[in-house]
Amino acid sequence: MAGLPAPLEALITAFERLPGIGPKTASRLAFFILRQPDEVAQQLAEALLAVKSQTANCPVCFNIMLAGQERCQICADPRRDESQLCVVEDPLDVLVIERTGGFLGRYHVLQGVLNPIEGIGPEQLRIRPLIERVQEGRVREVIIATNPSMEGDATALYLRQQLAPLGVRITRLARGLPMGGDLEYADQNTLLRALAGRQEL
Amino acid sequence: MAGLPAPLEALITAFERLPGIGPKTASRLAFFILRQPDEVAQQLAEALLAVKSQTANCPVCFNIMLAGQERCQICADPRRDESQLCVVEDPLDVLVIERTGGFLGRYHVLQGVLNPIEGIGPEQLRIRPLIERVQEGRVREVIIATNPSMEGDATALYLRQQLAPLGVRITRLARGLPMGGDLEYADQNTLLRALAGRQEL
Repeated sequence: MAGLPAPLEALITAFERLPGIGPKTASRLAFFILRQPDEVAQQLAEALLAVKSQTANCPVCFNIMLAGQERCQICADPRRDESQLCVVEDPLDVLVIERTGGFLGRYHVLQGVLNPIEGIGPEQLRIRPLIERVQEGRVREVIIATNPSMEGDATALYLRQQLAPLGVRITRLARGLPMGGDLEYADQNTLLRALAGRQEL
Repeated sequence: MAGLPAPLEALITAFERLPGIGPKTASRLAFFILRQPDEVAQQLAEALLAVKSQTANCPVCFNIMLAGQERCQICADPRRDESQLCVVEDPLDVLVIERTGGFLGRYHVLQGVLNPIEGIGPEQLRIRPLIERVQEGRVREVIIATNPSMEGDATALYLRQQLAPLGVRITRLARGLPMGGDLEYADQNTLLRALAGRQEL
């Protein structure tokens, strides 16, 4: 682009690499940074550099934790119910469920889902440590909260197969119409699921 | 948020400071950075730190240029028509107009618009250098391309008042229905403008 100095181009390109940020938004963000006091760019740069070096995976649940700690805040919290284990795909899912305030058990982060096309089998996921945690005997219910997608469903079925012999209760998050949603805007699959899963009133 | 290590919180907060990025998008971006190889975070961090120190304002048109240069690429380009001067609010507007490929003249960046409520008067903008450029005598037309907003219109009127005695042609970007737009979705003001500005077919 004529008239755009290289450092500004570089920043736009770097922003464009982030998910959901197209060329227009990337330009807007770069020019915003340019207009702001130095601290804005500096704080973001420092946070970016720190986040990878100062975090690690919890050795128990594989959620994100502060580097150098023995286990994550949730695993270390004695008030969290050990008998309920919620299995999710990645750390962002933990954050999302925590925000609801509706779950007081513990988590297990698979760090992905089964995806044969991309070569992700059970060995690439944290499934073995999950089975070992359940084998310890304190877990009574495993809530499988993988995404309601093809891969999420396949992973859920695989986990059920693996966990069934251990005699724990295995559940999956409910499917149906989203709250506040409108019937006429629901896609066909969601509507079929909502019908099939209808409950007594 | 329970379970979120401080460096991750800091990154989410830094992303949230960017325009158009809410808490959900900020979390998604931060967790994306976490999943990527170190280079992604590093390149963005370096670009952020470089952009402020390695750029400067062009002393002629006040657009962004590489620090240490005498003038910006557009001002230094002898093929750009000196007789047409497009006046914009900020450097992003230059980029947007350049992308259209429809303007081959030069620019003048005001670095803002008149806004009495925020205490921005003519002295806070690059209006004096604009008048001086026009006084040099090579400019024949000043195209005022401030935004179609209250402040943009007020700034355009002020500029017309200041430039009129200099005997140059003063124009303003056309208002009307956006291309590809649908009449029934146009807001009332746009439609009124389109009516008032109707042209012979």
